[in-house]
Amino acid sequence: MKKILIVGLGLIGGSLAMALRGFEDFEVVGAVRSQATYDKAEAMDAADRLTFDPAGELPGADVVVLCQDPAGIIAFLEEHRDRFKPGCLVWDVCGVKTAVMEAAKCLPAGVDFIGCHPMAGKEMSGIANAEGTLFRNTHFIVTPGPNATSGHLDLLRRMADWCKFGDVIVTTPARHDEMIAYTSQLMHVIALSVCDNDELFACQGFEGGSFRDCTRVAALDPAMWVQLFSLNAPALTQVVRTLEGRMRQYRQAMEAGDKEALRDMLARASDRKKRINLERARGDDVRPSF
Amino acid sequence: MKKILIVGLGLIGGSLAMALRGFEDFEVVGAVRSQATYDKAEAMDAADRLTFDPAGELPGADVVVLCQDPAGIIAFLEEHRDRFKPGCLVWDVCGVKTAVMEAAKCLPAGVDFIGCHPMAGKEMSGIANAEGTLFRNTHFIVTPGPNATSGHLDLLRRMADWCKFGDVIVTTPARHDEMIAYTSQLMHVIALSVCDNDELFACQGFEGGSFRDCTRVAALDPAMWVQLFSLNAPALTQVVRTLEGRMRQYRQAMEAGDKEALRDMLARASDRKKRINLERARGDDVRPSF
Repeated sequence: MKKILIVGLGLIGGSLAMALRGFEDFEVVGAVRSQATYDKAEAMDAADRLTFDPAGELPGADVVVLCQDPAGIIAFLEEHRDRFKPGCLVWDVCGVKTAVMEAAKCLPAGVDFIGCHPMAGKEMSGIANAEGTLFRNTHFIVTPGPNATSGHLDLLRRMADWCKFGDVIVTTPARHDEMIAYTSQLMHVIALSVCDNDELFACQGFEGGSFRDCTRVAALDPAMWVQLFSLNAPALTQVVRTLEGRMRQYRQAMEAGDKEALRDMLARASDRKKRINLERARGDDVRPSF
Repeated sequence: MKKILIVGLGLIGGSLAMALRGFEDFEVVGAVRSQATYDKAEAMDAADRLTFDPAGELPGADVVVLCQDPAGIIAFLEEHRDRFKPGCLVWDVCGVKTAVMEAAKCLPAGVDFIGCHPMAGKEMSGIANAEGTLFRNTHFIVTPGPNATSGHLDLLRRMADWCKFGDVIVTTPARHDEMIAYTSQLMHVIALSVCDNDELFACQGFEGGSFRDCTRVAALDPAMWVQLFSLNAPALTQVVRTLEGRMRQYRQAMEAGDKEALRDMLARASDRKKRINLERARGDDVRPSF
């Protein structure tokens, strides 16, 4: 029997362990740090086997999935780079890819690191919120290094299929980071900025679906998101600056009472949204799982 | 039998007609303008009776609900002010209240206008998207004028109960408009601004739940939202300006590489979001219906 070692059983690692159970002829081993996570993972039957010793499992692991926070992944690669099994596949789940791919250069030749980003999540972290169905119909983004083997890419696709991801998107780390700054990190900056308003606690009774939807992701883990924002600061600051500019244009049109300019802006942006909805509907049946 | 006249069977008017059917001893009459809406409303069995002639129904209507766009409501009040039945209750569903309450001052004494805002909606307009269950567990905001009778307020509460609104919030038009600028209109400015980015069509495959949730409401009706934004420009421009400032602070902390400042900002805002989630969980069981 072959072995998948999942390092870190938080929301994503725990969900992956559950989703990957039963995949081909692999045993799924989950490595945890705390007794509380161990107990919860055991109660949830999250993996075939649990361990406190990822280093001890590495030499026998055919696939290693790094599910810590970004700093944890980078530190793990550096600390254990000589313990990985030759020929193994290592992948991670981190929301930034350039920094992680850079850190993975420390691995010896023959250890194939492929950056991954499952575009799934919840605003609540920890294994208690993990679900084996978390990845259904979400995107699985893959950023292979120049030496990634086609055998490993194929193995990764089979794992993605088993976890019921909606599709697999292969791209470069730089393009991933640029896109994710816009589609994900910016949404978190917006949600945080909206919640950092003096009226937040007064507004109860006046909020509708749009407010709940927009602010949902503000309930994030600050320690992890400081890392994600900081590791992608050049791309993220650029999209924040662009959004500030757009919002200023809306404000200025309203301040000037220029209804014609405002109508043009609303027509243009709402039309873009309607068109992309149509493209999505035509393109595939990927639906949000959360 | 008494009569509720609903003027305008779009998403909200059509949903209200369906939700109000069977309420006490009222006949629900829906007034439409186009044959297409008439046919659709008839096929959906949206009202007890349909008409193209709201003016002809006014003298016999005990309750009139104005469900047009803001300009349509204001024009209707002015055009038909002398046709309302003495002692009747008139309410509207418009997303801004000061301007509508101001327009309603043209009504004769004895016609009781109470501003209302059902905090429910969808990004798709029109009767085809109407549902009798649209209002379940949403907020019903009420801004009575100084002469509103307690009998009419009580009638309004019974209608809200019948439609299964989660609660009834009574406030002033000015406070409503200030709060709605923050909780609703700002969310629409954000969604539009995010969609007005050159990368929108390139980002497919990289979007997760946060992007879908934040941009959902951008697929709006430009003609109506130009009115809503313009009629509430003083409050809305203020909250847009505040949000621009917050986003600039995040950007500047990232540009400066000031992780400590960034961590403080993230901790503060995420903590506020988590606390308000807790307050909501304690406060009541209002849940979004969309």
